[in-house]
Amino acid sequence: MMGTRNEIHAISTGKQSIEKLTAIAATIHPFVDAIHIREKSRSAIEIYHIVEKLADKEVPLSKIIINDRADVASACKVNGVHLAHHSLPIRPVKKQFPGLRAGYSCHSPDEALTAEQEGADYLFYGHVFPTKSKPGLPPKGLDQLREVCRLVQIPVIAIGGVNVENLQDIKLAGARGIAVMSGFFEAADPYQAAKQMFQVMNRTGGIW
Amino acid sequence: MMGTRNEIHAISTGKQSIEKLTAIAATIHPFVDAIHIREKSRSAIEIYHIVEKLADKEVPLSKIIINDRADVASACKVNGVHLAHHSLPIRPVKKQFPGLRAGYSCHSPDEALTAEQEGADYLFYGHVFPTKSKPGLPPKGLDQLREVCRLVQIPVIAIGGVNVENLQDIKLAGARGIAVMSGFFEAADPYQAAKQMFQVMNRTGGIW
Repeated sequence: MMGTRNEIHAISTGKQSIEKLTAIAATIHPFVDAIHIREKSRSAIEIYHIVEKLADKEVPLSKIIINDRADVASACKVNGVHLAHHSLPIRPVKKQFPGLRAGYSCHSPDEALTAEQEGADYLFYGHVFPTKSKPGLPPKGLDQLREVCRLVQIPVIAIGGVNVENLQDIKLAGARGIAVMSGFFEAADPYQAAKQMFQVMNRTGGIW
Repeated sequence: MMGTRNEIHAISTGKQSIEKLTAIAATIHPFVDAIHIREKSRSAIEIYHIVEKLADKEVPLSKIIINDRADVASACKVNGVHLAHHSLPIRPVKKQFPGLRAGYSCHSPDEALTAEQEGADYLFYGHVFPTKSKPGLPPKGLDQLREVCRLVQIPVIAIGGVNVENLQDIKLAGARGIAVMSGFFEAADPYQAAKQMFQVMNRTGGIW
């Protein structure tokens, strides 16, 4: 079960084969709290099969979060669904799927407050640092992350350019966790990358 | 509420603006039993807004079927969800969403039998006749439609090139209804096209 602190979220890239994605997820899952299946160009049945493969590889369903598709998350009995501006609104999702943890990707303090009011269980906020997945877009930076963390009660997970070097700053800004995409799924050694993040995170003490 | 016979299904093209799609749906709904929102390139929130607009225009939610997305159908409290080979499997959808009528698009007698066994509430079968939405693909024809209608107990809705001229043949093959896409949504006068289909269908008597 995903905790409310010390959270490490791993996010699939949407660019890997199902074999590669599931193999990496299976190797990193002991070090992470959530694995997001964020495969925007894949069909519902493909995502369903990805979850079946993950279950076969003994990745706990309680660590799996499906991007956008609450129906797939519900049918697969995974932990939750992660929503964004193009998804169903948070409120009807929480109403129709009370058993799903619902996260929301937000990009401003206003959006964060609204998402909390709508019933989001946690937030992604970012991108905090420059990241190759958002080329040319200026990062939000630590000050805005701090503001968002002060504004809402629900856990804020920092995303975008997070690495072992900036982990301490993210923690000091008030984030309750981090989300990593290419840093895990495109690492030369995903197992070591996740393990190192887990170890550094737990070494930082305090609420983490 | 959609009946079990005499069904006319209207299917959106996926190529029209939300304004045009909802305006046509609002004008034809008195003559049809189901309006399928089949907008494959649209996001969940766009489909959600389409349903809101349809409700504003007094199209009954009980006539609306959402393509592929059981979550959107459930959140919008519409009649049902229409599934295909790329969608979630029928069985988990019926289990998680017992309140949704679940249709399935099939293309062979075997697929039809399997879909019925999995719990589909009705089937689309086609394309029965040549249609511009399936250029170059040979139509299934009336004989195979007849075979499918004999094999399954659930309603079979004929799709593909259906018009007022071939309606009688479709009825004689055992279909319980028809589905029309461009014949309504791309008609010069959608209201007249739907009205004419409704009138001819009800004139054919018998089980229709």
